[in-house]
Amino acid sequence: MTTLTIPDNLLALDARDPLAHKRGEFHLPRGVVYLDGNSLGALPRRVPARLARVAQGEWGEQLIRSWSAGADAGQDWMALPDRVAAKIARLIGARPHEVAVGDSTSVNTFKVLAAALGVAGPGRRVILTDADNFPTDLYVAQGLNALLGGTLELRRVPADDIEAHLSEDVAALLLTQVDYRTGRRLDLAALTAQAQAKGIVTVWDLAHSAGAFPVDLSGAGADFAVGCGYKFLNGGPGAPAFLFAAERHHSAAPVAISGWMGHADPFEMARDFTPAPGARRFVAGTPVVLSLSALDEALDVFADVDLDALRAKSLSLTDTFIDLVEPLAARFPLTLVTPRDHARRGSQVSYRHPQAREVMADLIAAGIIGDFRTPDILRFGFTPLYHSHADVWQAARGVQAVLEARA
Amino acid sequence: MTTLTIPDNLLALDARDPLAHKRGEFHLPRGVVYLDGNSLGALPRRVPARLARVAQGEWGEQLIRSWSAGADAGQDWMALPDRVAAKIARLIGARPHEVAVGDSTSVNTFKVLAAALGVAGPGRRVILTDADNFPTDLYVAQGLNALLGGTLELRRVPADDIEAHLSEDVAALLLTQVDYRTGRRLDLAALTAQAQAKGIVTVWDLAHSAGAFPVDLSGAGADFAVGCGYKFLNGGPGAPAFLFAAERHHSAAPVAISGWMGHADPFEMARDFTPAPGARRFVAGTPVVLSLSALDEALDVFADVDLDALRAKSLSLTDTFIDLVEPLAARFPLTLVTPRDHARRGSQVSYRHPQAREVMADLIAAGIIGDFRTPDILRFGFTPLYHSHADVWQAARGVQAVLEARA
Repeated sequence: MTTLTIPDNLLALDARDPLAHKRGEFHLPRGVVYLDGNSLGALPRRVPARLARVAQGEWGEQLIRSWSAGADAGQDWMALPDRVAAKIARLIGARPHEVAVGDSTSVNTFKVLAAALGVAGPGRRVILTDADNFPTDLYVAQGLNALLGGTLELRRVPADDIEAHLSEDVAALLLTQVDYRTGRRLDLAALTAQAQAKGIVTVWDLAHSAGAFPVDLSGAGADFAVGCGYKFLNGGPGAPAFLFAAERHHSAAPVAISGWMGHADPFEMARDFTPAPGARRFVAGTPVVLSLSALDEALDVFADVDLDALRAKSLSLTDTFIDLVEPLAARFPLTLVTPRDHARRGSQVSYRHPQAREVMADLIAAGIIGDFRTPDILRFGFTPLYHSHADVWQAARGVQAVLEARA
Repeated sequence: MTTLTIPDNLLALDARDPLAHKRGEFHLPRGVVYLDGNSLGALPRRVPARLARVAQGEWGEQLIRSWSAGADAGQDWMALPDRVAAKIARLIGARPHEVAVGDSTSVNTFKVLAAALGVAGPGRRVILTDADNFPTDLYVAQGLNALLGGTLELRRVPADDIEAHLSEDVAALLLTQVDYRTGRRLDLAALTAQAQAKGIVTVWDLAHSAGAFPVDLSGAGADFAVGCGYKFLNGGPGAPAFLFAAERHHSAAPVAISGWMGHADPFEMARDFTPAPGARRFVAGTPVVLSLSALDEALDVFADVDLDALRAKSLSLTDTFIDLVEPLAARFPLTLVTPRDHARRGSQVSYRHPQAREVMADLIAAGIIGDFRTPDILRFGFTPLYHSHADVWQAARGVQAVLEARA
């Protein structure tokens, strides 16, 4: 990769970046601009040592005793899901006891959808969703419907038409706040209010929200949510996911997957399920300690991060990328699909291009790692914890070079 | 811990132990006899280095590329669940495409129960189970029943009465092969045949079987099964679990939790769920790569292990322990609850004692780590991969010392 001369205005933005010190907390491979943290967040430098301690010390040396060791201080493995939940709660505007950590986003979506249906008004059998929702959300709803004998209807409409479809037969509104392809961000608070005004229970997928910008589930009065541990939370490949259940639903919402780790007293070994207090009841099986410890450690990177500063930087990075790439749209078949409106943008920038797959392959070969999303999307994720405006410059110049080389 | 003089006959058994070389592949803490591998298997020495490679190299350095890197050789993260499934398949007498790895045992129990109900005969609405089954199996069945509107009946009967309750209204028989408290082993083949003769679909929990002795699901013609990655498979705390679905059920069994990683082509991002071939369809969300890699590495310890030799050694270890502890039962209120009959024994030995909780606390303080199970069970798990008959001697002497000290 050749040396680039970064424009002074971008260097100035980096010079006064209040999050600039966070970059050093990540391992970023040499020779690469990594713009795929919205698919797999980069490795926080502190994680490998934590993994080694957990494997060698907690597992290897202390063995089974680690399940209870340090319980008085909440440092036992049993409490690990709760400790991680508390760290995630701050990022999504929830209270710690409203968050349960573990399982995958898919499994958690199943749990909260079942819970939402359980508290929905009688006779409501429609799950309303964005037709372009992330596939697993759609699949999970399909599987749940089949399990329930096809008694539900999964109603898929364009995101723009959601409001018009908030009707009295809808039980649950299942939406992903930020579209994984376009990066378009929905108005979580407004849609929640509109849905609830019609008696509809809301389920938000925060896969591309948590850790990317502040989310305020409590402020919005949201009902249920899920999110991903391995994108903007940087918890590692396939990191445990989370779910949110508003406190007011805890007593009435059914726990569809009721496992022993969601029991009020797991080691009582009682024959009947008595749910643990709070969202902990949604933790089903034994916590996956190695991966969960990595996520726990990764979340500490956020400890001193002001979330409004995070959002401001994210918008500055994505604004910069859009501005730099804009001239290329006049010369190449490149169409911006991410909203320019800040309120409607997540932390990524996407373009349509008729040869998106090939263009992205060339970019990756040149060390600009974004990703291709079917059918024709070039996707560039920006992580304000570790990206600089200089990275954005380098990425934009890379896009230009690849498009020129293909012309 | 004082030096013990091990009887010659036990030293002779250890001297001709064909698995003696496996002990060196585990990290076993000094000053401890660890008899709780049926709760959390000991750390295979090779695992920490694998974790470090995955974290630093595959995640940190290769990042998102690891999902597809090495795909031609099946070495990509996408294929990791399948690679692990193949290793587990050998241990349970299954074919690789009949095993799906991921999620917890609880979540997998939910999946296979839903699948079993989906292929059960019409009108059958009873789940028959052992009243003393492991709690999470009961809880999961309860949660599934509640989700289905209470249309099922969970019929809990003593294990001895199962055969008499194999009636025409039973949809699924849900049994754990080895009782977690008593170590009693059920006749998987016979009960499967008896159940199927009545049109009942079988679901076996192999939590205390897989890796403890050879299981032959294919030979038994079993329908569905689940099992645990962190007990006798030594995959680490909360390691991913597995499920088994007999090939003949693949096309008809519903996939209740249908996530994108069980789709025939996950990155096609199709709007409708098309199941992947084989049991892979039951893999729901993104594989939890760190923990799954630890399990993958741990399973390689079994690569050169003859499973009949494993079983023979397990019986020799448990026989020895029973013989050594037997004289104590005449002096102390200690009652063996594990069957002496080899065919009916797993790889643990359990005793009832009225102060079991306190006795086990004393044992653990003395470096003999078994566990207490409510209400009055002392449980000692034996792992033929890393235990010697000398360990058994030491453990039995420890039990004697603790009981004498309390008398």
